[in-house]
Amino acid sequence: MLQSHLFSQTRREAPAGETSKNAILLYRAGFIHKTMAGVMSYTPLGLKVLQKISGIVRQEMNALPHVQEVLLPALHPRELWEESGRWAEAIGDVMYTVAEETAALGPTHEEVMTDLVRAHLHSYKQLPVALYQIQTKFRKELRAKSGLLRGREFLMKDLYSFHLSEEDFDNFYGQVSDAYLRIYNRCGLDALLTKASGGMFAKFSDEFQVIAEAGEDTIYLRADGREARNQEIVEDASSAELGEYCGGEVKTASAIEVGNIFRLGKKFSEPMHAVVQTEDGGEQALWMGCYGIGISRVMGTVVEVYGDVEKGAMVWPKEIAPFAVHLIDLTQDKQGVAVYEALKASGVEVLFDDREASTGAKMADADLLGIPTRIIIGKRSLEQGGAEVIDRSTGESKIVALTDLTKTV
Amino acid sequence: MLQSHLFSQTRREAPAGETSKNAILLYRAGFIHKTMAGVMSYTPLGLKVLQKISGIVRQEMNALPHVQEVLLPALHPRELWEESGRWAEAIGDVMYTVAEETAALGPTHEEVMTDLVRAHLHSYKQLPVALYQIQTKFRKELRAKSGLLRGREFLMKDLYSFHLSEEDFDNFYGQVSDAYLRIYNRCGLDALLTKASGGMFAKFSDEFQVIAEAGEDTIYLRADGREARNQEIVEDASSAELGEYCGGEVKTASAIEVGNIFRLGKKFSEPMHAVVQTEDGGEQALWMGCYGIGISRVMGTVVEVYGDVEKGAMVWPKEIAPFAVHLIDLTQDKQGVAVYEALKASGVEVLFDDREASTGAKMADADLLGIPTRIIIGKRSLEQGGAEVIDRSTGESKIVALTDLTKTV
Repeated sequence: MLQSHLFSQTRREAPAGETSKNAILLYRAGFIHKTMAGVMSYTPLGLKVLQKISGIVRQEMNALPHVQEVLLPALHPRELWEESGRWAEAIGDVMYTVAEETAALGPTHEEVMTDLVRAHLHSYKQLPVALYQIQTKFRKELRAKSGLLRGREFLMKDLYSFHLSEEDFDNFYGQVSDAYLRIYNRCGLDALLTKASGGMFAKFSDEFQVIAEAGEDTIYLRADGREARNQEIVEDASSAELGEYCGGEVKTASAIEVGNIFRLGKKFSEPMHAVVQTEDGGEQALWMGCYGIGISRVMGTVVEVYGDVEKGAMVWPKEIAPFAVHLIDLTQDKQGVAVYEALKASGVEVLFDDREASTGAKMADADLLGIPTRIIIGKRSLEQGGAEVIDRSTGESKIVALTDLTKTV
Repeated sequence: MLQSHLFSQTRREAPAGETSKNAILLYRAGFIHKTMAGVMSYTPLGLKVLQKISGIVRQEMNALPHVQEVLLPALHPRELWEESGRWAEAIGDVMYTVAEETAALGPTHEEVMTDLVRAHLHSYKQLPVALYQIQTKFRKELRAKSGLLRGREFLMKDLYSFHLSEEDFDNFYGQVSDAYLRIYNRCGLDALLTKASGGMFAKFSDEFQVIAEAGEDTIYLRADGREARNQEIVEDASSAELGEYCGGEVKTASAIEVGNIFRLGKKFSEPMHAVVQTEDGGEQALWMGCYGIGISRVMGTVVEVYGDVEKGAMVWPKEIAPFAVHLIDLTQDKQGVAVYEALKASGVEVLFDDREASTGAKMADADLLGIPTRIIIGKRSLEQGGAEVIDRSTGESKIVALTDLTKTV
């Protein structure tokens, strides 16, 4: 699209009350607007990234066996949460209540999903069932100062699976774990499978952690650097066992949790009577798992990893970038126009900086917007034979004839 | 997909406390699950329809000049609503408050959108700006008993436009109105542009009304039946002017409002100081319009128009049907399997009833699911030379050779 048609503007200043890298860079680049603490609006640019991340998550979820998408409500009746026994606890914690406490805004959807599943599930022959949604979650966060990392309102993919046997559950759990690693990889994140506390659900859970300064968690890295343990489950940091795990010296890192998967067992299926008739005519409560990815948190984490606040610069990983190519025309006679039309016609997602602005202003905006491939057409590049094509993730640059650009990008 | 893999089950009974056609048929067919009064969950089947309606709306919105998609939060800060002067009024009406009344759940997004736009808009050169979202809305409905027609939580497309002059606004308003008629048409609805009260915004607004028994509105039809007036603005039903409008005898009908568009003027831009610098260096508040379509209400309205509760039958308009083809195999030797694979391979969205069930049960389920083209392979059709292909909207039926089916549908 034409940059002169872009709704959002870049800014020099950081947003009020925000210190995190992702909040500063996304705000300055015009991807987000802070509506209130912990509550962000997404501009057309920001929504593009959010939709691309959602698209990757949907592809990988739909490729799993049995998995189907649904849409559950954000308003939850009090009765369901009382049935599972979590109402009082959740009220005191993160849940916003509404309508004189007869309802709440879903901070998570185990109750509402179990209610849907028990209404349609009768026979063991229907199992396994695995349903996910991409839906807004609401959580009462006292400190909501890390941009997209910890919001009061945020977008989440939550998958819930229901099985007849623990063995079937285990097998599915492993497949979801693999899909999660593919999702992070496609989003440009190197996520480590991390053993963590199971919280109110179980002794342990599995988290996916991305090493980053802004991370609120501390993890112990395994010797090969491919897996980790969350500090919360490490009882003795000087133990020989932990030393061996880390391959000698104990290595820790700050990390951001970008997903978690839980073995729920029968924690919800028993009190909420989510049962099926078995082959021998008996009744059995279901084995259940839940699997979450914070879509907006992934977006924020990518900026924590790929952004540079001091330079006012960002480079989006290719598969989730708002545009593939940023075309910048510095010529007097607008030679970029024909290139823009040719790139669009060949299906390239291109943002064309057609604005009347100084070269410095255009480059500073381009650094902030972070589009991974930049094409500059100017006097200097034309003297060298065409346009300068820069791969911003490697910094590599080459001159390409204007007529060859559609073949190059 | 295989019908044996469908998560939801069809039902014989109607949902508790619901009397509307759309609630009964969607519940019985397994498209929705009632989580609480006015709050529905969408199963994989129901979500398919909702996503198709959203897709049509996105296509038509993106085809309009200047229009871009955003995503605003559902949690709204009290300050913004106080700035526009609507907090007290909205609290007493439909708004759910949360977090000790420092925030509310958005029943509509004028305040939050104006706040986003004023933050990025400075010069008249940027105008017009037109941003929309497809986002969940929350409204305190005392009676929420009409399925998807009047929910406490529902999905809405809301577009807001901002202009320098009333003339530019008028021109854009007409283009949106035309796009709305195209959207309803593609969703199978015959919507009438209807002059109505402007509520708190203006003297008049324009609604889009679909004639249906379940409609809460009464409209007066123009002689040609292509436009209407809402009863709420008719002062004297016996006036000569109204008689002339209706072409003699006054004709009224019950109708469902599926969309409305408002001339907001400067109602929000003035108190909220949404202004631009004009060419002569002055400052001007923006002309504003808002344009809403209830995505989930459109889904409910389609069922009110195309469903039959007594027969337990529905026929979805083709462009929003959850599947294009329902393939029903009544043969002993599963001759449908090869047809299913061929249809899938040629890109047809097909639901294959591969279940072990009686012919009667399969037909009753197919009637409820409402897929517009039905293909039956059975002993009788094979004797006649192939499969029976039924266009359920016309009732027409023909025999097609099994090898020719991919060319026919």
